[in-house]
Amino acid sequence: MSEQTADAVLLQLFDELFAEFSEIGRANDTGLHRLAFSAADAEVRAAFRARCAALGLHAHTDEIGNQFALARPPVPGDRTVLLGSHLDSQPDGGRFDGQLGVAAALAVVAEAAHTEVPQGTNLGAVNWANEEGARFQPSVMGSSVFTGQLSLAEALAASDAEHTLLSDELVSRALAGTSALPATVAAYAELHVEQGARLERDGAELGIVDRTWAAHKADVRVHGVQTHTGPTPMALRVDALAAAARLIALLRELGLADPDDRLHTAAAWMRITPNSPNATPSLVEFKVELRSPEEERLHAARAALVTAAQEIERGTGVQCDFGAWSERRAASFDPDLVALATATAISMGIRAQRMPTIAGHDAVIMNAAGVPTVLLFTPSAEGITHHAAEYTEPADQHRGVRALAAVARALLARV
Amino acid sequence: MSEQTADAVLLQLFDELFAEFSEIGRANDTGLHRLAFSAADAEVRAAFRARCAALGLHAHTDEIGNQFALARPPVPGDRTVLLGSHLDSQPDGGRFDGQLGVAAALAVVAEAAHTEVPQGTNLGAVNWANEEGARFQPSVMGSSVFTGQLSLAEALAASDAEHTLLSDELVSRALAGTSALPATVAAYAELHVEQGARLERDGAELGIVDRTWAAHKADVRVHGVQTHTGPTPMALRVDALAAAARLIALLRELGLADPDDRLHTAAAWMRITPNSPNATPSLVEFKVELRSPEEERLHAARAALVTAAQEIERGTGVQCDFGAWSERRAASFDPDLVALATATAISMGIRAQRMPTIAGHDAVIMNAAGVPTVLLFTPSAEGITHHAAEYTEPADQHRGVRALAAVARALLARV
Repeated sequence: MSEQTADAVLLQLFDELFAEFSEIGRANDTGLHRLAFSAADAEVRAAFRARCAALGLHAHTDEIGNQFALARPPVPGDRTVLLGSHLDSQPDGGRFDGQLGVAAALAVVAEAAHTEVPQGTNLGAVNWANEEGARFQPSVMGSSVFTGQLSLAEALAASDAEHTLLSDELVSRALAGTSALPATVAAYAELHVEQGARLERDGAELGIVDRTWAAHKADVRVHGVQTHTGPTPMALRVDALAAAARLIALLRELGLADPDDRLHTAAAWMRITPNSPNATPSLVEFKVELRSPEEERLHAARAALVTAAQEIERGTGVQCDFGAWSERRAASFDPDLVALATATAISMGIRAQRMPTIAGHDAVIMNAAGVPTVLLFTPSAEGITHHAAEYTEPADQHRGVRALAAVARALLARV
Repeated sequence: MSEQTADAVLLQLFDELFAEFSEIGRANDTGLHRLAFSAADAEVRAAFRARCAALGLHAHTDEIGNQFALARPPVPGDRTVLLGSHLDSQPDGGRFDGQLGVAAALAVVAEAAHTEVPQGTNLGAVNWANEEGARFQPSVMGSSVFTGQLSLAEALAASDAEHTLLSDELVSRALAGTSALPATVAAYAELHVEQGARLERDGAELGIVDRTWAAHKADVRVHGVQTHTGPTPMALRVDALAAAARLIALLRELGLADPDDRLHTAAAWMRITPNSPNATPSLVEFKVELRSPEEERLHAARAALVTAAQEIERGTGVQCDFGAWSERRAASFDPDLVALATATAISMGIRAQRMPTIAGHDAVIMNAAGVPTVLLFTPSAEGITHHAAEYTEPADQHRGVRALAAVARALLARV
């Protein structure tokens, strides 16, 4: 089979897989609503497994529900190159985020399985469980458990807004296996959409991620005193929602005030108790996230938030508790692998550029765990993401798939 | 039976009823969690019905679930004096709000039924459905439907946060009757807790409500654009929650800035879509309420809010929609009945004072419908309300019950 024919077969398989997966949990015409461990997620996982069998790959599912499709059964000591991303989506999310990378990984592994995997190595595709963290927190859960950065017990104990336990969903939908993947992961590569507009702006066709922004996240609990919203004098109200509102408004100001747009701030999830129209809230919980390439900006923002919270406490009587901050450090990707990916792109005639990732990805978690990792970005039209209008041109998708295949070959030759 | 003995019998029955009802849906030791049309509400309604039968009263339930206990079967043309309040509670609310008035009404009607109801008149107790509006909006639903200020169809179509239809709850728990009360309500009297600290501050034992504050309420919808909370540049975010937060923070400032505390403002209920930690909210809905004795203050506050919303729209790209404002006008209670209640209190040696109501009550709805209405307040310790710590001294409870009985007698003699 000529190189050109092999490419065509690979891209055709990728197109098929991507189209098939896109129909499962399809929402808002071009989007996906496929929350982790939901019925739709269970359906796409079944499709992944069925494809794995049909393509002659070896299937394995671990205890948190990470799905693997290996070129051959794992042999202890074999050095495994893993390619992957995630099939869960945001609520009313886009169809490229995660899914692009899993379809690409599965296609690459299937096409390489019988001819290109040297003795003593293995090649696998992975669908990481619950990358989005939309329904069950934290995000990047599957890869964090896989690398030991999150305990299995903690992950299993997560519950969603309806108080459904993650472990109950795993059991009732039969989504989990009983053992870890019996393999040594020697390298990991992921293809993902950029989720920003930088590649498009710079006319680049492929991003090669060389570093990641730091992220600090905390669960904030604002305690007020429940009272009637009518007769209670304004000055006597200990209103948890009004206090939380001031903090959230400030949070956005902190980010906007950064002259270089190098401090991104957000609160996107909130829970109000009792959430009754005539009762001043007694408790408002929300999640704060701060992202920056520089730890100092994060610490300055945290200090500003805490100072504001103390001022609000003094002025209103509420109590603001910032839970323990979870800190993902800024990190570099392995320079040798960045160079390898760059050389690969150049040799293929792809206009690539090095760039950071601001969002967390499974590749960020693998890299943090010390696994040699490559993260490639395809352009996102207008930077739109976590939205049904998320889009990557077919030509950009295919360039990304071909680049992932070439990087996988290079990694197999290297591990 | 001497007057003193009659009083003792009345108060003992009241104590029994109050204690019995207090056990149903009891929460947080001294409080209640008995949302409208819930299992606990169904249970307390069954207790009301059973007591009605045991006390030899005539029961009627109307189509929205208002429960009546009449001294005798209704005869067309009879002029009926109705006494009542509501048995539903706020989430984790207090046990005096509403329940005090229903237990008092039922005790008074039972004790007066066979001796004190003149020919051509009738006397009844009522448990108004869904006064709180905590689970199903709007509040004061039962009395509003009864007086034709809200259509039955609109009330039946209300749904709660879990998308349960009110009409489904009525049917599945068999809480509604099939016909309106066949009676002409000639007067209405309600005993309620003050839910403020004014009586306590002034050393008064009973409040006689002579006017009500106006209230303007609106459902606000802030539309944003869903995107990733990480990579999206701060300036490009159209963040519905950050915008809503600014409006809610301003709302509190507007109330606090009123030098006379004659503008009360609140937002206590909110719904966020998609409420996913990593997706900027596309929609935030919240309820605004403004209360004042003066319409001008309400209109000034509304104008300030709308101006702020327009500024936020221009600065951020969100769209803020204020739904139609529901306006409850400031109103006076019938001066003759205020005088009657005052004279009654004086003759009983009760230190009474005239005062406004800031909160809405079923009595406010009856008064707005043109029914001659008396609203009496018992003191609330420290003004605490919508909270398990809500408390009214037994002596104050009993003074209120005796005053309600005396007012009922005076109304029966008058209608």
